[in-house]
Amino acid sequence: MDKPLRIAIAGLGTVGTGVIRLLETNRDLLTARAGREIEVTAVSARDRNRNRGVDLSRYAWEDDMTALAAREDVDLVVELVGGSDGPALALARASLGAGKHFVTANKAMIAHHGIALAKTAEAHEAALKFEAAVAGGIPVVKGLREGTSANALERIYGILNGTCNYILSKMEDTGADFGEILAEAQAKGFAEADPTFDIQGIDAAHKLAILAAIGFGARIDFDAVRTTGITQVKAADIAQADALGFVIRLIAMADTETGEDGRTRLLQRVRPCLVPKDHPLASVDGPTNAVVAEGNFSGRLLFQGAGAGDGPTASAVVADIIDIAREEIGAPFSIPVAGLEPMPPVEPGHRMERTYLRFTVTDRPGVLAEITAAMRDAGVSIESLIQKGRADDGGEVLVAMVTHEGPERCIKEALDLLDGSESLTDAPLVLPILRD
Amino acid sequence: MDKPLRIAIAGLGTVGTGVIRLLETNRDLLTARAGREIEVTAVSARDRNRNRGVDLSRYAWEDDMTALAAREDVDLVVELVGGSDGPALALARASLGAGKHFVTANKAMIAHHGIALAKTAEAHEAALKFEAAVAGGIPVVKGLREGTSANALERIYGILNGTCNYILSKMEDTGADFGEILAEAQAKGFAEADPTFDIQGIDAAHKLAILAAIGFGARIDFDAVRTTGITQVKAADIAQADALGFVIRLIAMADTETGEDGRTRLLQRVRPCLVPKDHPLASVDGPTNAVVAEGNFSGRLLFQGAGAGDGPTASAVVADIIDIAREEIGAPFSIPVAGLEPMPPVEPGHRMERTYLRFTVTDRPGVLAEITAAMRDAGVSIESLIQKGRADDGGEVLVAMVTHEGPERCIKEALDLLDGSESLTDAPLVLPILRD
Ligand SMILES: NC(=O)c1ccc[n+]([C@@H]2O[C@H](COP(=O)([O-])OP(=O)(O)OC[C@H]3O[C@@H](n4cnc5c(N)ncnc54)[C@H](OP(=O)(O)O)[C@@H]3O)[C@@H](O)[C@H]2O)c1
Ligand SMILES: NC(=O)c1ccc[n+]([C@@H]2O[C@H](COP(=O)([O-])OP(=O)(O)OC[C@H]3O[C@@H](n4cnc5c(N)ncnc54)[C@H](OP(=O)(O)O)[C@@H]3O)[C@@H](O)[C@H]2O)c1
Repeated sequence: MDKPLRIAIAGLGTVGTGVIRLLETNRDLLTARAGREIEVTAVSARDRNRNRGVDLSRYAWEDDMTALAAREDVDLVVELVGGSDGPALALARASLGAGKHFVTANKAMIAHHGIALAKTAEAHEAALKFEAAVAGGIPVVKGLREGTSANALERIYGILNGTCNYILSKMEDTGADFGEILAEAQAKGFAEADPTFDIQGIDAAHKLAILAAIGFGARIDFDAVRTTGITQVKAADIAQADALGFVIRLIAMADTETGEDGRTRLLQRVRPCLVPKDHPLASVDGPTNAVVAEGNFSGRLLFQGAGAGDGPTASAVVADIIDIAREEIGAPFSIPVAGLEPMPPVEPGHRMERTYLRFTVTDRPGVLAEITAAMRDAGVSIESLIQKGRADDGGEVLVAMVTHEGPERCIKEALDLLDGSESLTDAPLVLPILRD
Repeated sequence: MDKPLRIAIAGLGTVGTGVIRLLETNRDLLTARAGREIEVTAVSARDRNRNRGVDLSRYAWEDDMTALAAREDVDLVVELVGGSDGPALALARASLGAGKHFVTANKAMIAHHGIALAKTAEAHEAALKFEAAVAGGIPVVKGLREGTSANALERIYGILNGTCNYILSKMEDTGADFGEILAEAQAKGFAEADPTFDIQGIDAAHKLAILAAIGFGARIDFDAVRTTGITQVKAADIAQADALGFVIRLIAMADTETGEDGRTRLLQRVRPCLVPKDHPLASVDGPTNAVVAEGNFSGRLLFQGAGAGDGPTASAVVADIIDIAREEIGAPFSIPVAGLEPMPPVEPGHRMERTYLRFTVTDRPGVLAEITAAMRDAGVSIESLIQKGRADDGGEVLVAMVTHEGPERCIKEALDLLDGSESLTDAPLVLPILRD
């Protein structure tokens, strides 16, 4: 048997303590599968005296976590602190720069600095791995890097944020409105005290940018992700969608097209979408995550499981550690950094889509004529329309419609025509319908 | 860039020609991901003159496929011939014995000879890979070997035979009986002319034995798989199941328990089961496959996709080739052969299960009393029972029931008590209910 793989862990919160528990609980089978022992030698967090429910007495402690990267008795540094910059990034640079392998669950950091870090890893022949950064316990980074490696991918999409999915599926089950369920989710610990990154779609965007890089061989371009959160979705929208045969899910999706200049362009979006009830993603409920990859030979593949939590996330972190112990280490983004293409973003106006549109309007004559005229003038063809009488609670009237497939820009044009109209009491909601 | 990886392909049928098409279509991206060119140098099949719709003129031809293993210009042999023994096995032994890497889609051969072949591979430092042997295009061998590697698995189960799943879900959709749908599936090419391996559950058993070895670190024991096919399932059972909130699927499942002697024992079964409609496997329709792995840290992970077909299967074969080109080669069954435990089979009489039982009986007084008395005497507790009046077509009466959870042996005892009863016009059907 090879000599032990010596690891240091920075960050001993939810995931960090989960990793320590996993390494203890499954010790024997990990040794068998890794082909050598995995030995924690040093740890770091902010507060040395905090009781974390795990025994840390056998490990060296560093107050300054960057010091972990310099230790002689460490082959691999695990970063479970979080934050796109700051100490996590400093630790990543120091570790890889010292030729130490580096494993992280930090999607924000990889989305912003993944390419630069992969370069450093290459230069120092160190591994950089981040399975836990995307979709928690689901091995989807490996799934794309190794499972679908023979395919040109057509689309990658999925449910990448458990908090949003929990909220949307709870709204579906209970008929309650967004704010109510969010408060409940926070009380139960399913949503953070500051849920901004989750409900605005930013967390899903981080993950999508990482998947798009691996799947399409693109340089990560987080800033190009077009992101809409779920805060505008009302209980009434979910009820309407249901009546039409859909559920609403926050869908992160990436695909590519060839521009007129012959260059590959990348479209990355996070948006609430109407998902047909017979689509596999429609039955993904609660905090579960799921990712679909559509390959030109594999067809549609689905990976589903727990998107967060100490156990699942630790499972992904330790799977990366085992890969490294086995010396199954390749390019973090599937191909070497030099081969990753900078892909300009797609301007999606020409993309064909069916769309759900919801207007909240004042209850007076002519409103419907005004809306439908704007649709007609913008070239939007309406497939079905429902006007729902005055709601009990707000005195607003709801006009919801589904359009035939048409270019996205027409929807925007129609909304521009209606912009400033006194008939509308609230910003209209536009939800694309997920194409099967 | 490293020098090309030179491969030979034996078998140029559905999968073999799919692999050649894939290697041509995706050439550039494969080179980028593999880090080197993948070059076919030689091929073999039975009939040199058959038109296979792919250009073979650039490759050397061998009439005797075993000769591929001896060629100087071959680093890796791909076997896509089939059959557990015979020429495929001879080729595997010769290739690995010559230190050449070996990739196969042959579940029958791996289920019977996988351990011996893995030993030969180890001895000669060659890779043995068989992603395509299980669940076609779904990367579930990698999923268990690498994705869930940090977990002790509780159960592995899934839908591993597309033909059976197509038949069962078609029966569900149409209400037609088994024989009718089988004939239709054969006409459409979804089922083989000789469907025995599929409908008797043997094909699923091959795949399960492979997954169980990887997931539980067991020596493959195909003969210990307890296998029941789908031929006894009637349209009436599917209707009954539906009324009770279930669908019927052929489920392959493996788990372990510790025997009184302290040894780990393995239970492997392929059986039609009642699957609760809200379980992810219930919505797996048509020829799709899906595998669930339940880890002690990851929780439940689901992998879903096309279980067969030229494209998906080729996708899995070429993913293995890329792994080898990347030199990401580890133990075929996750741990070295010496570490794989021979696990005696579980005698499942004590296992607790809820069960669906269906009797076809003559329509005369006392039949129900006879059946329920047998249940009582065997200690089986009935949760619900339906007696359906004379069926239109056969003059038989159907008695269907669902039991409370109880030891499996009691069901067997009850059936033994009823054995030979003149009231029963057909063998009773016993379907377990999949535990969530
Ligand atoms: N939680 C999940 O389910 C999940 C899932 C996927 C990915 N992730 C990612 O995993 C990472 C960790 O998440 P978490 O939920 O485990 O966070 P957490 O519970 O808040 O733990 C963070 C840990 O980092 C330590 N820390 C913070 N700043 C530090 C500093 N300057 N120096 C040293 N240590 C510092 C904290 O120390 P103290 O304990 O002493 O305060 C704490 O132990 C994040 O990148 C997150 O995005 C989490
Ligand atoms: N089809 C699927 O969807 C699928 C999915 C997963 C796994 N698999 C596995 O993949 C393997 C191949 O399946 P397939 O569907 O591609 O089979 P296939 O279409 O029947 O092709 C078999 C090929 O093997 C050749 N062959 C047979 N006996 C031979 C011999 N003695 N010497 C040389 N060549 C011989 C045949 O040659 P000729 O063409 O000259 O007759 C043919 O090209 C099997 O192990 C199967 O279980 C198949």
